[in-house]
Amino acid sequence: MTNTIPDIVIARLPIYMRELCRLADEGEKTTTSSQELGKRLGISSAQIRKDLSRFGEFGKQGTGYHINYLINQLRQILHLTEEWPVVLIGAGYLGHALAHYHGFQHRGFRVVRVFDNDPVHIGKIMNGVKVQDVKELYKSVLADQIKIAILTVPTEAAQEITDILVEAGVTSILTYAPIQLKAPSFVNISYSDPVIQLQQMAYYLRPQSEQS
Amino acid sequence: MTNTIPDIVIARLPIYMRELCRLADEGEKTTTSSQELGKRLGISSAQIRKDLSRFGEFGKQGTGYHINYLINQLRQILHLTEEWPVVLIGAGYLGHALAHYHGFQHRGFRVVRVFDNDPVHIGKIMNGVKVQDVKELYKSVLADQIKIAILTVPTEAAQEITDILVEAGVTSILTYAPIQLKAPSFVNISYSDPVIQLQQMAYYLRPQSEQS
Repeated sequence: MTNTIPDIVIARLPIYMRELCRLADEGEKTTTSSQELGKRLGISSAQIRKDLSRFGEFGKQGTGYHINYLINQLRQILHLTEEWPVVLIGAGYLGHALAHYHGFQHRGFRVVRVFDNDPVHIGKIMNGVKVQDVKELYKSVLADQIKIAILTVPTEAAQEITDILVEAGVTSILTYAPIQLKAPSFVNISYSDPVIQLQQMAYYLRPQSEQS
Repeated sequence: MTNTIPDIVIARLPIYMRELCRLADEGEKTTTSSQELGKRLGISSAQIRKDLSRFGEFGKQGTGYHINYLINQLRQILHLTEEWPVVLIGAGYLGHALAHYHGFQHRGFRVVRVFDNDPVHIGKIMNGVKVQDVKELYKSVLADQIKIAILTVPTEAAQEITDILVEAGVTSILTYAPIQLKAPSFVNISYSDPVIQLQQMAYYLRPQSEQS
């Protein structure tokens, strides 16, 4: 059943989970409703109920959802009950920011290896992890059976690194390089490109030439 | 007519434009087809034709799209014919990476002001821009009529900064803080949260407990 669920539904589950965790952290109540969640997220309550109902019955008419129970169910659905080891390639400013990102903690991921090709970075300690020479990338990823990678390398290196990662068994790649990567269809690639996001918003702005 | 176009269609236009720019840079040809674009992007050619046809007739049966012409048309549709000034708040590692990001060039945006509240960062020069005290944020953004902001501040500061930005006239915010921001409905907020992207991909991974 689970393999028939649209990607767009899966994409919303982590957003529900993040808001549920915030509700739990606020500690004011133990239950919530699709109305409350929807209001906080700017998503219709009907959409939330429909999305969640694809995975089972999590709430009761009248009492709503038990926050911690629903968080745990979403963790199971999203395969986040155990921490995933993550390899980070690129130890520049962005890589540094990600290696030290507090948001990974308790959210299912841990950067366990960092690689770079620049002698300036190799050997540095980033959040407890020593930056390794990218030459060791294939062997290390394979040996550790790492499935998830984050790429903060320059555009011109992104495809070559991707090829090595896929060869070593990585099947999920989050990339910050502004280039479309080629990989077999069983590899999931998620892009983070600030310009694409800014361009999507610029459409809704009044053109500068029309502004006073 | 344009205000009836779904957000999801608008969201794809920058991705088409980025690929068209890459085709132009490769310099091998002056025209392309929805088939070629679709193959490079992993999007169906029918989808591309349908999306583009909402804005007019850009291609001809048989000859396809003229690459540079289509790039220019998309620039106009997305309001990217002039460079938008952008304010960046947060001059830490992530802010530093964004201030020096080459991808902004020629893609419609330029970071013209950088703010931080940390004396360690204030006064530093980042890619030619001097980091200012965040106390000056409201006045500067208002005076420069800046409409677009990038937030790389800690979670606990994100809402307060957002309130100041909106008050000063900003209507597009790209935020890296892992928190849902509250703003009036005319403000567009785009989130960049690496953990959400990783969690969306984890669903498609075989649970670690099931791996050998």
